[in-house]
Amino acid sequence: MDVAIVGGTGAEGFGLTLRLAKAGHHVTIGSRVAKKAAGSAEEARGLLGADATVDGAVNAESVTGKAVVFVTVPFEGQALIYDAIKDAVGPDTVVCDCTSPLMSAVGGRASHVLRPWHGSAAEFAKTLLPRGTRLVAAFHTIAADALRDLAEPVDSDAFVMGDDAEAKALVGSLIADIPGMRWVDCGGLQMARIAEGLTPLLISVNSRYKLRDSGFRLTGRDAWGDPRG
Amino acid sequence: MDVAIVGGTGAEGFGLTLRLAKAGHHVTIGSRVAKKAAGSAEEARGLLGADATVDGAVNAESVTGKAVVFVTVPFEGQALIYDAIKDAVGPDTVVCDCTSPLMSAVGGRASHVLRPWHGSAAEFAKTLLPRGTRLVAAFHTIAADALRDLAEPVDSDAFVMGDDAEAKALVGSLIADIPGMRWVDCGGLQMARIAEGLTPLLISVNSRYKLRDSGFRLTGRDAWGDPRG
Repeated sequence: MDVAIVGGTGAEGFGLTLRLAKAGHHVTIGSRVAKKAAGSAEEARGLLGADATVDGAVNAESVTGKAVVFVTVPFEGQALIYDAIKDAVGPDTVVCDCTSPLMSAVGGRASHVLRPWHGSAAEFAKTLLPRGTRLVAAFHTIAADALRDLAEPVDSDAFVMGDDAEAKALVGSLIADIPGMRWVDCGGLQMARIAEGLTPLLISVNSRYKLRDSGFRLTGRDAWGDPRG
Repeated sequence: MDVAIVGGTGAEGFGLTLRLAKAGHHVTIGSRVAKKAAGSAEEARGLLGADATVDGAVNAESVTGKAVVFVTVPFEGQALIYDAIKDAVGPDTVVCDCTSPLMSAVGGRASHVLRPWHGSAAEFAKTLLPRGTRLVAAFHTIAADALRDLAEPVDSDAFVMGDDAEAKALVGSLIADIPGMRWVDCGGLQMARIAEGLTPLLISVNSRYKLRDSGFRLTGRDAWGDPRG
């Protein structure tokens, strides 16, 4: 699948780049600076070997014609980034917002939630994109370190929210391509108000137990994925 | 340990009663009506056998002299219940609030969060108790059905929040007595703002996947418990 990772030069986005490219997808890293994107793409190819198809481009260019666009940027950069890509996102493209609104965006603690007017960063993203854009929210609880460590499966489930069941299933199929990961449909986009809060909860746990990669598994069922069967 | 479960006639409280009494603790079920409490205590003894020490009392009486008091009532009853027990809670008693503020308290959906002025139901509870009461919040993600099914271990971790490390460890020791369960110190009482939101997230997941007992396991470490070692 053709995928863009806007913010793919950051820790979370770069980890996701490695995992999806390793699974055989064509990944384009988006950055505000073309040279930075190209540098990260080169680093990814160096880690993954010659078979991997990873390239880099400025943000707007990176998303053009892609099936799925992941946005993995800090909350304080979210509005600017969506403004840069909004005209390049096609009507069929699925956008997966991975933003967690943390108080660190305004100089506070990363273990505290910053509550956007719209309810969640995902709902804020919705207002920044053209009406009707297929928007999903996910990856708030997946540690960058766990994604980056290609030698180990990722011991975490991804919570996926959105109002378009097909879009959730498409993002879910990419998640299922990452060793160890399962995806759980947690409901409509508004449920991101809850899921985005799980990032600071894990940051608090990491700090207490001196970890970098705590995460969640959901219990009650062996297989998750598309609840429509 | 001498434990009271205020709201122990309800599904969650009754499940917790069974688990803690089965682990050998003396459990007193609290209810607004003494006869209801006595009836639930009798039902528990019938399920657990003659060795179990479960009795019932009206709420204020049930908490007197107890080491730990669990409050497992719906959000709409929380203020009234704390008003009833506040004068009977001793300075050494640890109170564990298990309330999740759901929109169902005001006729809305149980998968939606109702945000109290104080930030969380646990912080609201703090204002209803005498200054200095040792307060902990936990059990928001533990399904009543899972607690009730004594034939199976509980496949869920309990997220514990509070500002008194010893109080968290005391509640944690009770949690660790329940087969399958581990407890995770998630930080100060304010982190209940996040953990209380996990109840509606699980309700949303249960509804989508036709379950009654989904829950969370934390990954990143095999053993959790007291982070102080």
